Amino acid sequence: MKIYVAQHAGFCFGVKRALEIAYETVSKFKSAIYTLGPLIHNPQVVEQLQEEGISPVSNLDEIGDGILIVRSHGLPPSVIEQAEEKGLIIVDATCPFVKQAQKKARLLTQDGYQVLVFGEMEHPEVKGILGVAGKKAICMSNCTDLRNLRLSNRIGVVAQTTQSTETLALVVSELVKTANEVRVFNTICTSTQLHQESSLKLARKVDCMVVVGGKNSANTKRLTNLIDKEGIPVYHIEREDELNKDWFSGLLKIGLTGGASTPKWLIKRVSESIKAVGRKA
Amino acid sequence: MKIYVAQHAGFCFGVKRALEIAYETVSKFKSAIYTLGPLIHNPQVVEQLQEEGISPVSNLDEIGDGILIVRSHGLPPSVIEQAEEKGLIIVDATCPFVKQAQKKARLLTQDGYQVLVFGEMEHPEVKGILGVAGKKAICMSNCTDLRNLRLSNRIGVVAQTTQSTETLALVVSELVKTANEVRVFNTICTSTQLHQESSLKLARKVDCMVVVGGKNSANTKRLTNLIDKEGIPVYHIEREDELNKDWFSGLLKIGLTGGASTPKWLIKRVSESIKAVGRKA
Repeated sequence: MKIYVAQHAGFCFGVKRALEIAYETVSKFKSAIYTLGPLIHNPQVVEQLQEEGISPVSNLDEIGDGILIVRSHGLPPSVIEQAEEKGLIIVDATCPFVKQAQKKARLLTQDGYQVLVFGEMEHPEVKGILGVAGKKAICMSNCTDLRNLRLSNRIGVVAQTTQSTETLALVVSELVKTANEVRVFNTICTSTQLHQESSLKLARKVDCMVVVGGKNSANTKRLTNLIDKEGIPVYHIEREDELNKDWFSGLLKIGLTGGASTPKWLIKRVSESIKAVGRKA
Repeated sequence: MKIYVAQHAGFCFGVKRALEIAYETVSKFKSAIYTLGPLIHNPQVVEQLQEEGISPVSNLDEIGDGILIVRSHGLPPSVIEQAEEKGLIIVDATCPFVKQAQKKARLLTQDGYQVLVFGEMEHPEVKGILGVAGKKAICMSNCTDLRNLRLSNRIGVVAQTTQSTETLALVVSELVKTANEVRVFNTICTSTQLHQESSLKLARKVDCMVVVGGKNSANTKRLTNLIDKEGIPVYHIEREDELNKDWFSGLLKIGLTGGASTPKWLIKRVSESIKAVGRKA
């Protein structure tokens, strides 16, 4: 049995940067450090961060004073204002690509467009973008959504940075049929595209794929769904102890990839466990 | 045999308006009256106009003085300037929807976009739009074209008013995959959409379709091609004497439609001839 790892797997630029900022903050300040929600969508990494003294909270009310790290997904401006009013020190670790999506949403709103955010309503990144995109802004995740929306004649579109370009293109093609003007900023980040492309490329030459990443990571789930369409078995796991030797019985080539918030050491650990499972099988 | 005529067939708003302007000009002025190319793409109507004293020329050099009617498709600004320099009186019969497409192309150019005109390179309307769209502007007619183009990262799109919205949507979806920003004005006119939709609707309930219109009419040709995809026989004719009784042998329901530059009287004449053919068959 041979194991192949996708060319682009694991931490993206924005996640790497957020972690660097987090560790730097820990090393520089003695205050209590918090994030609103986990800093990145990987429970194993968040556990390590907690050991360093960075605590995820779900609400600002849980915090007295200290430092709030704005995580890679960003935050709505109203929440940052609230935090500032509470006297918290803000350390901004928002991914620059997410910042760019927020900036374009703001620009579209100022230019009078109704903003459509192509992404998942419940995702923190989308909430952050909606926070700058004006009252008429809407989130949509696919073409079906579109049919139920009452849209303006001038539509501005931005995308959650980890979405699929193919689906964005489909959504835009539907919008063009109904609106007079559609202005689209393709804010999907290069890293997401490379992750998706290299994982799909690998999926086409192996017998099964294992995707490593947080169960709460939207981009990891999307990666799994995209690979699933290639017609080979695909398993989304968070840790090596979820592996099942039956998955690999009789297979020769196993593909391995990881989401944008998956550390390299977790992918390596899974790879070694698959090898061990292969030897036992 | 029963004949059905599409709900929206024949003269569109812009063509009707251009003809009204032409006849009004004839009635008011005694000067020689010219159009650069035929006023509309229907040889039968252009013949009638010639009898009234409106002569199509292919080049401004053919004209001494008199009146130049700018036909429904519009003209590039440089050509209008040349005509003015020659001392010709300009009567503008450009379709207001075409004017709108020109206006949007100008706006996009001023805002720094590379303009893509979705349409047919050789069509006078497209030449007019390209004339206002700046030096970097390009015409494209389908997605295959796109692959051969070197495009900027900020693309502005306008469409020839008689194109198909479905194909425009496809082209835009391809653009979204490569450019950072795509700003689209769907300048396809309502009349074109109604013509296409009602003809396709009719095509789905008849045994064969006859499309009446100039062989030089791009929108009539496109209508024929769209109907052809419905899998029933479709015939594009200009005049009733092109009808062939074999087309209708054994058929019960015949559909009839006409392009945007086809007069109602021509459609009626064809309808009567089909009836006569049906009686003989």
